[in-house]
Amino acid sequence: MKVVIIGGSGHYGYALEGIKEDRNISITGIAPGSEGEDVNAVYQAACNLGHAPRIFDDYRSMLDEQKPDIAVVDCFFGYHAEVIKQVLKRGIHVFVDKPVAITFEELEELKEIYSKSDVYLAAMFGIRYSAHFMTAWRMVKEGVVGQIRLMNAQKSYKLGRRSGFYKSRSTYGGTIPWVGSHAIDWLYWFSGEKFVSVYASHSTRYNQDHGELEVSALCHFTLSNEIFGSVSIDYLRPGEAPTHGDDRLRIVGTRGILEVRNGKVFLINDEIDGIREVPLLSEQNIFLDFLKQVRGQGNCLVSAEDSFYVTEACLKARQSADEKKVIWF
Amino acid sequence: MKVVIIGGSGHYGYALEGIKEDRNISITGIAPGSEGEDVNAVYQAACNLGHAPRIFDDYRSMLDEQKPDIAVVDCFFGYHAEVIKQVLKRGIHVFVDKPVAITFEELEELKEIYSKSDVYLAAMFGIRYSAHFMTAWRMVKEGVVGQIRLMNAQKSYKLGRRSGFYKSRSTYGGTIPWVGSHAIDWLYWFSGEKFVSVYASHSTRYNQDHGELEVSALCHFTLSNEIFGSVSIDYLRPGEAPTHGDDRLRIVGTRGILEVRNGKVFLINDEIDGIREVPLLSEQNIFLDFLKQVRGQGNCLVSAEDSFYVTEACLKARQSADEKKVIWF
Repeated sequence: MKVVIIGGSGHYGYALEGIKEDRNISITGIAPGSEGEDVNAVYQAACNLGHAPRIFDDYRSMLDEQKPDIAVVDCFFGYHAEVIKQVLKRGIHVFVDKPVAITFEELEELKEIYSKSDVYLAAMFGIRYSAHFMTAWRMVKEGVVGQIRLMNAQKSYKLGRRSGFYKSRSTYGGTIPWVGSHAIDWLYWFSGEKFVSVYASHSTRYNQDHGELEVSALCHFTLSNEIFGSVSIDYLRPGEAPTHGDDRLRIVGTRGILEVRNGKVFLINDEIDGIREVPLLSEQNIFLDFLKQVRGQGNCLVSAEDSFYVTEACLKARQSADEKKVIWF
Repeated sequence: MKVVIIGGSGHYGYALEGIKEDRNISITGIAPGSEGEDVNAVYQAACNLGHAPRIFDDYRSMLDEQKPDIAVVDCFFGYHAEVIKQVLKRGIHVFVDKPVAITFEELEELKEIYSKSDVYLAAMFGIRYSAHFMTAWRMVKEGVVGQIRLMNAQKSYKLGRRSGFYKSRSTYGGTIPWVGSHAIDWLYWFSGEKFVSVYASHSTRYNQDHGELEVSALCHFTLSNEIFGSVSIDYLRPGEAPTHGDDRLRIVGTRGILEVRNGKVFLINDEIDGIREVPLLSEQNIFLDFLKQVRGQGNCLVSAEDSFYVTEACLKARQSADEKKVIWF
């Protein structure tokens, strides 16, 4: 199976970790998603795994010449949609960093093209596959919290010095779609509900010379069945903190409350005394799950529909923050 | 100094704990805030402290006969405003449970009457005086997190079986004003900013036969200087949980992040490695602080202005949730 990689600016690591486990895959080509994008790091990483990809200047030529089975798309976030379009049009499966698009128009166009294709697409919601989130999700599906009523999600990152493309909305897309998308996905994935409305805010203040990049944001989602979900997002985690990110999720239900915090899962419910730390399942890899679907061996936990829907929710939240008004779905 | 107590439905404990420490105070009378309110528990508690209050049927007669220095108002929440009005009109200091009013009209009337009085009023934002919140607040004021950018507050309570007056908006006031008011106060008190807008949601579903009582709620505040604050509120804490309430506050600033959780305070900032648990200051008592102001010995940390302003914020949040629209201040 031939895989090419377009871009090297996001989470290509998910694909490489999966490919490391699968000897039937060959990384045959790498190209930037736009002129000037640096793909050296991803090229080195592929070589380190024993692959010998050819480097192309133009990803379209690469797709046409190599006719790969799968394209991993991982370019400047603002170019995801254009690249995916080119990939889908050629009947190639696509594993793409999130969000899949940064405008509603692009998103609609992608959905249209995808619906007419017979390939698969999944966005890199790889955090679903981490030991703690997977454990928490399975427990919630087993009913340990009863009916979900309220969810509080958190993404908190160190800012550091980001590449230039983070500084412009047109190449970066915004902090709600980039950082927030994971947490917005959790609300949707855990609850299994539909989004009804969103109200959001974001601010670029104190972004340490990062142009249009928002360093703080807050979203308030209403989902079907009067379920509410908050998403708190920041790039203000101090450089001295023990980890890069501080992902959290609190799920409040009619029977109990489950929390993901610090890579662990905690549960209080009507059957246990006190707070229980739950033993974790094994971490999985999203790209291997995607491969399974490509090979017709099952469904990837992240569907194309999920990828499009969560992107839509991100864009509506960003629109709400830009326009300071409630956006309805 | 003579103190009377009107009602026995909320946090009169704050006053009793303070009075226990002060031998110059005598609880001389107790009356319900409305017909049928049970004041037996507060009467017993006062007797246990060595006081011999007279019980009145009508608090107005009590105020007129006893001419107390201070009235502790702690009746059904929907009657706070009417009772305070009667107290203020008689030139008596008032220590009242929050919220001070459950309608905008009552609140405006109270502010008007208060502005013409020469007595003091403080609402029972007693959580400010707990060891963990006081410690956190002082640290934030000392600058350990730099400029505040984002705040996440949480109130989570066990529901149990509540008195009948909780089941009706007219006597209860709503979960955002009753439970949420503390957390809304934290946003205001910690940041020192003004509220700009609020978007909120609440739901009565799964309230286990508690009429109009909302068991889940979420508020999204924007404060001046593009500071955002979430308030998550629920009555869904399982009966088996180790404590009645799970109060939390996370303050994200330009230099660090401080958290109040589980009665403890945690800090990460640019001067320390890892996460530090901060040693706690001593718990204080809000009623003793109020007494200090009544005696002209200093200002109570909870001013009348704070009490009115946070009540306004609660009512605007409740209005937002009722009308499903953003409310501006």
